[in-house]
Amino acid sequence: MWCFVAILPNLPGSRLPTQAPRASFRPLGLTSLHSQARTGTRLSPQNRKECSLVRRLLALGFLWTLPAAAEEGMWTYDAFPREAVKAAYGFEPSQAWLDRMRLSSVRLAGGCSASFVSPDGLVMTNHHCIRSCVQDLSSAKRDYLATGFLAKELKDELRCPKVEANQLVAMTDVTARLQGVTKGLSGPAFNTALKAEMSKIESECATGPELRCDVVTLFNGGKYQLYKYRRFQDVRLAFAPEFSMAAFGGDPDNFNFPRFGLDAAFLRVWDANGQPLKTEDYLPWAKDGAKEGDLVFVSGHPGATDRQSTVAQLEFERDVSLPFSLLYMAERRGLLREYASSSPERFRTTRAKLRSVENALKGLRGRHQALAEPSLLASKRKAEAELRAKVAADPKLKEHAGAWDAIAHALDAYRPLVAEYRLEEVGYGFASELFDIARHLVRAADERPKPNTERLREYTEGQLPALRQQLLREAPITPEYEILSMTFGFNKLRETLGADDPFVQTVLGREAPEELARALVKGTKLFDVKERQRLLEGGKAAVEASKDPMILLARRVDAQAREVRKRYEDTVESVLNKNGELLAQARLAVYGTSGYPDATFTLRLNYGVVKGWEQNGRQVPPLTTFAGAYARHTGKEPFRLPDSWMKAQGKVPGETPFNMATTNDIIGGNSGSPLVNRDGRVVGLIFDGNLQSIGGDYAYVPETNRAVAVHGEGLLRALEHIYGASRLVKELRANQQ
Amino acid sequence: MWCFVAILPNLPGSRLPTQAPRASFRPLGLTSLHSQARTGTRLSPQNRKECSLVRRLLALGFLWTLPAAAEEGMWTYDAFPREAVKAAYGFEPSQAWLDRMRLSSVRLAGGCSASFVSPDGLVMTNHHCIRSCVQDLSSAKRDYLATGFLAKELKDELRCPKVEANQLVAMTDVTARLQGVTKGLSGPAFNTALKAEMSKIESECATGPELRCDVVTLFNGGKYQLYKYRRFQDVRLAFAPEFSMAAFGGDPDNFNFPRFGLDAAFLRVWDANGQPLKTEDYLPWAKDGAKEGDLVFVSGHPGATDRQSTVAQLEFERDVSLPFSLLYMAERRGLLREYASSSPERFRTTRAKLRSVENALKGLRGRHQALAEPSLLASKRKAEAELRAKVAADPKLKEHAGAWDAIAHALDAYRPLVAEYRLEEVGYGFASELFDIARHLVRAADERPKPNTERLREYTEGQLPALRQQLLREAPITPEYEILSMTFGFNKLRETLGADDPFVQTVLGREAPEELARALVKGTKLFDVKERQRLLEGGKAAVEASKDPMILLARRVDAQAREVRKRYEDTVESVLNKNGELLAQARLAVYGTSGYPDATFTLRLNYGVVKGWEQNGRQVPPLTTFAGAYARHTGKEPFRLPDSWMKAQGKVPGETPFNMATTNDIIGGNSGSPLVNRDGRVVGLIFDGNLQSIGGDYAYVPETNRAVAVHGEGLLRALEHIYGASRLVKELRANQQ
Repeated sequence: MWCFVAILPNLPGSRLPTQAPRASFRPLGLTSLHSQARTGTRLSPQNRKECSLVRRLLALGFLWTLPAAAEEGMWTYDAFPREAVKAAYGFEPSQAWLDRMRLSSVRLAGGCSASFVSPDGLVMTNHHCIRSCVQDLSSAKRDYLATGFLAKELKDELRCPKVEANQLVAMTDVTARLQGVTKGLSGPAFNTALKAEMSKIESECATGPELRCDVVTLFNGGKYQLYKYRRFQDVRLAFAPEFSMAAFGGDPDNFNFPRFGLDAAFLRVWDANGQPLKTEDYLPWAKDGAKEGDLVFVSGHPGATDRQSTVAQLEFERDVSLPFSLLYMAERRGLLREYASSSPERFRTTRAKLRSVENALKGLRGRHQALAEPSLLASKRKAEAELRAKVAADPKLKEHAGAWDAIAHALDAYRPLVAEYRLEEVGYGFASELFDIARHLVRAADERPKPNTERLREYTEGQLPALRQQLLREAPITPEYEILSMTFGFNKLRETLGADDPFVQTVLGREAPEELARALVKGTKLFDVKERQRLLEGGKAAVEASKDPMILLARRVDAQAREVRKRYEDTVESVLNKNGELLAQARLAVYGTSGYPDATFTLRLNYGVVKGWEQNGRQVPPLTTFAGAYARHTGKEPFRLPDSWMKAQGKVPGETPFNMATTNDIIGGNSGSPLVNRDGRVVGLIFDGNLQSIGGDYAYVPETNRAVAVHGEGLLRALEHIYGASRLVKELRANQQ
Repeated sequence: MWCFVAILPNLPGSRLPTQAPRASFRPLGLTSLHSQARTGTRLSPQNRKECSLVRRLLALGFLWTLPAAAEEGMWTYDAFPREAVKAAYGFEPSQAWLDRMRLSSVRLAGGCSASFVSPDGLVMTNHHCIRSCVQDLSSAKRDYLATGFLAKELKDELRCPKVEANQLVAMTDVTARLQGVTKGLSGPAFNTALKAEMSKIESECATGPELRCDVVTLFNGGKYQLYKYRRFQDVRLAFAPEFSMAAFGGDPDNFNFPRFGLDAAFLRVWDANGQPLKTEDYLPWAKDGAKEGDLVFVSGHPGATDRQSTVAQLEFERDVSLPFSLLYMAERRGLLREYASSSPERFRTTRAKLRSVENALKGLRGRHQALAEPSLLASKRKAEAELRAKVAADPKLKEHAGAWDAIAHALDAYRPLVAEYRLEEVGYGFASELFDIARHLVRAADERPKPNTERLREYTEGQLPALRQQLLREAPITPEYEILSMTFGFNKLRETLGADDPFVQTVLGREAPEELARALVKGTKLFDVKERQRLLEGGKAAVEASKDPMILLARRVDAQAREVRKRYEDTVESVLNKNGELLAQARLAVYGTSGYPDATFTLRLNYGVVKGWEQNGRQVPPLTTFAGAYARHTGKEPFRLPDSWMKAQGKVPGETPFNMATTNDIIGGNSGSPLVNRDGRVVGLIFDGNLQSIGGDYAYVPETNRAVAVHGEGLLRALEHIYGASRLVKELRANQQ
């Protein structure tokens, strides 16, 4: 499914950088997401037949060097190709249309997209985007993942402890300012100057906690913009279906189509006065549902793509980065499956995490398979050779000609560092929510006394509201699960780095992983939000006085972890940043500025049509129906329709459209994006891509790349006739046209 | 540790081809081991520092194109470089010396090496080579893996249900005969003719069940030999230490050095009259233990190497084959760890299997890391280009010039087939010992009525004794574990091929994986050896009349599984065989015949010296001591010395050598090989390699590649003073010189 990150609580790569993949910002959860280090959660092909179709297309070879296909492109709002849409479809979005779409779009800071769908702050997104909220609000007696959740009245809506929603209100170009301070610099000096200026710009902009300001890196540094968001932290759950219906078909059907999932949920943003947010910007529901061939738009936040990566970066991803993540995830999945199967309460508390791991695994595997396809890299090699030749031939680009080799050398330097960096600093070696919290408390105490521009990026003033929310969230942490997960992390640490490694010795000493994990979790007081607050507000004195074993561990390892981070940033990241910028500038100089930047979890708009595709000579229709869902029901998980559906059988006509496929160019992070028609009205809800869109990380294949959405009509009817959500349906229908 | 295969019961790739990697022979357990499909169990580097050393050496680049280093080479006995040894060490092994070594060497058909060490049939090997026997002989009340096993008297020795020992008595060249029947053929015709003639030669040779005859493929088909073995199926356990001592340091220390493991066991071969086998050929124990710098020999059965593989084959291994196996193993490991941790009985029944999976995983990961090292493939590319140029320039080799491309195309054809082939035919999709048995019964019933040369290779007359032993073994099968493992297999099947795949539909229908696995295991009678015997002897009529659900499943999927096997054999294997042969001939024509063939689990001899190596500027000494073992004891698994050792502390002087490193060129399958001095006397027992020997699959790096052995003196002293194995010590000391 189409979630980007943030869906792996306690796992590295699970939370989100505001500006992936450039800077080292890590909002919480020690989880920077570098283009090399990321453990994103994208799509994947597992069906060999479907794969072979992609393969045949890839084998054509020219795909990667062609000009962008019609529907290709994750466009920034300030460069949307209005004329191209007009030429192809006879419809040109006006500036007012674009502004309304932008202001109706919502980013969930955890890694998803969403949209305002009523003037009273109602927000539509995917169930899988707020699954951890549903989990957090549940208990052994009241399992909303199992039963679903419906707030009968406004007052019954329940606050999600960890959800932050953002609305993009302004975008300002700051390229000149940033390139000014880094001019002539390279290596660590480049990095330091860049990050300091970013922090400065952001803190100048963020005049209060109600604003979030992120310097956004586009075109790998070819362009920088300051994105100013309204920040909403009081976000409440209004409706969620049963997990089994949201994820109907489970892991086997994930990333597949035809599909039959109600991966939808409704939230509501509440204002500072404890009232539903009044908003003029929202998307009304369309009266007529989308049909095959309809022009449709997606406004959302694609997380990360690697379409501009060099061949060396792609090879590194294939040979080093992805295998590391894949093996970690695969073992973790085996562990969680068996753990979850051993008792109902373990199942309840682990189900959502397991699904996230499985989704990540399928996505990562798909990316690996795409890169392992020889024709993809062959085409990338060809394109790279062409660009290099053009750059070499242009005396004005002399400074840029060495960028490819510099990147390759930085990756050579990264190779022997990957395991250390990820395990010790990114968090793979701890895999613990409590440790994350402890490390943030320890580091915040060290960093906050420093001048803003000298801090680690995740502790700058602009980031503190998010940090505060994360640290002081009232979400349950399951001790038994923490022990399991931390034991796993310690085992990985020891087995990867060796029992005699100094860092491993600092962590374990002569302790066994499980015993240590158990002692830490049993001994810590960090379950208690008040204790976290005391340490956060008490600063360095409070932290240094603490005898909490988790705090002590975080302090014990901090010097070594910071050292490996510094080595990574100085020898790898800074070189990638500097030379990524040089390459981006060279590309702009040679090919012009008409393209779109790689995805960076910032707001993008794209267009496409409702359309199936051909597979093994057979046409896959773009729409599925309610009747299809009932036909796929076997009564056995994950193909078991919930009781609500079985009881309501027949209430929604069988031919009602349920899910649909479109040609929109999306990727992880777009989950929860609204699908709208040319009138800017909701006709669907993006939640996934098909298997063939696997290569979307590296290139868009128009023949087969499909986004997958819940059909707007099907969604309304399910709400009304299966879930009896008349209050919400009334609210949605109020402005239906 | 240095086990080759056979250590993964119920898992694909776990048992052994007699002639890997050429023919499709699969002795039992649906486990052919093709060079592309194999799930071998080799070495691995996990410590980044140690890796970086290998990396630096690899980075020199020329290593792979240099002439063989002094100690490099897994030599067949008929081509041992006696003069080279004489030139380097002033000692030339005589023919009698070689013959005695060969006849004293023992192959354990499951995938290990061993040796006769007394005139009464006593056999020395590794604990990990007979771990499944120790497990099979154990029960909840009598856990020999935990306590170790010592037969006080001869009569107390216990028969291992599954162990077959082989002694190589004759080797005959059959190259002309095989190349005669395949002359002018290609594709499936080549394959069919080759396999039929192999079966014919083998059945002519194997005049009784006491003989085992295998046509052995050397130099990828440049040479074929008929290996004639004495076959021993009554093999009994005399001594095994505690699992925790055999595998001291567990997974973290596996493939590491310095090392402190007593990975040793003693078996005894009994003759047809129920008496200990009298043998003139055995290796006496050396009186003086090996010291640093001593010349030492290893006689054993390296399982498989890929030093002659083409670049396309290595890339396929890196991008497709290894990732597939790695992900499967990693998830399985997570599952088994959690399962084993949930009860003492589960721990007891799973411990050995888990260790095997962990060992396989570490080995596969190491191979992947070696291939992901850019300099390795760069050097291979260079060497290949040189050979191609020489072949292209020689008109006599015209026929051979297309072999590289033909192999690459066959691998392209294999790519979309890998998952299907492995899951449906090789057995990854079932992962069940009971299903293995059912499939063999079903196929044996179909195949045995056919003429010998037309059967699937694993059902030819020559292979029936091994098949019979495997099917009729009195080894316990744990129902709960079978359900767990089979559920895992079914889940992999469905998730990889998709819920709607025809094969998946044939297996699962509308059933859920776990429910189906449970029903099959609860319903089958194949736990009962008598029932298996009835079906084996009853043939087709009995099998077709059976209502056993496992038999019915095996029958239901057989047509589809055979079809995918045929597709694999016709479009992939036959091309690889034919063109592997062409390449081997070209290589022989260009470079002469002075080399050694890639390992194929056939008997090889090599030489080396007791020697440490330099690591990060620090010298690693070649010997460890008993004192070192006690120093490493933390009291916590896997660094907990067993009670026997704690009680006996001080009885063996601390400076007594325990483990050692040598420069011998070995690989998985060499586990259990004797290490002998120039007098042909035992000075040690090979059980592992160091992390740096990781590249050994692809090339031998003399500076750092080290074999790891139990020191002969330490082994005797442990037997005597820690285990009180006076009967065995007396037998071993009787001929000590």
